[in-house]
Amino acid sequence: MENQLITKIEERLKVTINPKRYRHTLGVVKASIYLAEKYHEDTMNAKIAALLHDFAKDYTRQQLMECVRTYGVVTDNIIMEAHELLHGKVAASIAKIEFNINNENILNAIENHTTGREGMSKLEKIIYLADFIEEGRNYPGVNELRKIAAEDLDKAVLQALNNTIIYVLSIEKLLHPNTLYARNELLLKMKS
Amino acid sequence: MENQLITKIEERLKVTINPKRYRHTLGVVKASIYLAEKYHEDTMNAKIAALLHDFAKDYTRQQLMECVRTYGVVTDNIIMEAHELLHGKVAASIAKIEFNINNENILNAIENHTTGREGMSKLEKIIYLADFIEEGRNYPGVNELRKIAAEDLDKAVLQALNNTIIYVLSIEKLLHPNTLYARNELLLKMKS
Repeated sequence: MENQLITKIEERLKVTINPKRYRHTLGVVKASIYLAEKYHEDTMNAKIAALLHDFAKDYTRQQLMECVRTYGVVTDNIIMEAHELLHGKVAASIAKIEFNINNENILNAIENHTTGREGMSKLEKIIYLADFIEEGRNYPGVNELRKIAAEDLDKAVLQALNNTIIYVLSIEKLLHPNTLYARNELLLKMKS
Repeated sequence: MENQLITKIEERLKVTINPKRYRHTLGVVKASIYLAEKYHEDTMNAKIAALLHDFAKDYTRQQLMECVRTYGVVTDNIIMEAHELLHGKVAASIAKIEFNINNENILNAIENHTTGREGMSKLEKIIYLADFIEEGRNYPGVNELRKIAAEDLDKAVLQALNNTIIYVLSIEKLLHPNTLYARNELLLKMKS
C-alpha cells in the first residue's frame, strides 16, 4: 500500500519538478531516512514527506495562486509577499487532496519545511534539516551542519534556522516570523 | 515648564544611571535633536524621550521586577527571558508616573527603543536610531550608519534593525519578534 503510494508520487514528481530538483529531492529522502533512523522516527513517514516537500517548487506564481484558491490554502501577508515561501503550503495541500495523505505529522513536515515554526515535531525537524544537509548541497558551513546533525537534532535545526535568518537578511528578503519563533524556542530549550 | 521638566529629569538621571551611561544619554539627546531637525520632528519631544530612554538601564533585575509589579508594566515571555529588553518598558512607565509625561509619542519612543516595532512613528525611529549613532558609539559600521542616517531615516533604521538581528544571533540571545516585524515592514516600504 505504502509502496504503491511511493511509486505514484515518484511518477508524478518526475513530470512535475525539473531533473535537478528531482535529484535534490532524492537527496532529501536519503538524508531524512538517515536522520529518522538516528533519531528514532518512522522512516516511511520521513520518505513520503521528503518526496513531497518540493512538489510545488517549480510551480509558477499563477499555478501557486490557482492552488491557493482551489485547495483553500491558508496563508498570510508575509508568504503572499515572499511567495517563494508558499510552495510548502501548496505541497501539503496537494499531498492531502491529490495523494490522500491524512497523517498530520507528514502534512506539517511538508507545509513547514520552508520556514520552520514554533513547536515543530521530530519529523518536521528532520525534513527541515534534511533539506539543508542532503548530499547535493554545497555551501559554506554545510559540512559543519552535517556534523552537528549527526550529534544533536535540535542543535542542528537551530544552526540551520540561524543560517537562514542571516542569509535572508543578506539578500534583503522578508523573513517569516515562524523562522524566528522556531529559533527562539530552540535557543531557550538548549539553554535550559 | 518644559525646561523645569528637563532640569528635573537631568537631576534624577545623574543619581540613577552611571556616568558613562549619562554621557551616552547626552549623546543620544544630541543625535536625536539633529535627526529631529533634519526630519522635521519636534525637538523638545526628541530631547525628553532621549533623556529618559535609558533611565532604567542600570536597574537590577530586582528593581525592574519591582517596577513591573508596581507600575503594571505590560510585558511578554521573550522580554521576561531576555530581561535586557525590559528597561525601555520600565523607563516609559517611570516617564508617565514619576515625571507626569502623557505624550503617547514620547512614551512609545522610550518604550520601544530596545526592540523597535511595526508602525513606529517618526519620533520612535529617531530615538531608536540616535541610540546607535550617537557620537560616543564606536563599532564596525557605525560611520556607514551615520552616513545613511543623514540621508534617509527609514533606510538607516532598517540598517540598524538588520545589524541588531545579526548581532543578537551572534551572541546567542533571544531576538524579540518586534525587531523582525519592524524590519520586514520597512523592507517592504523601501521596495514598494
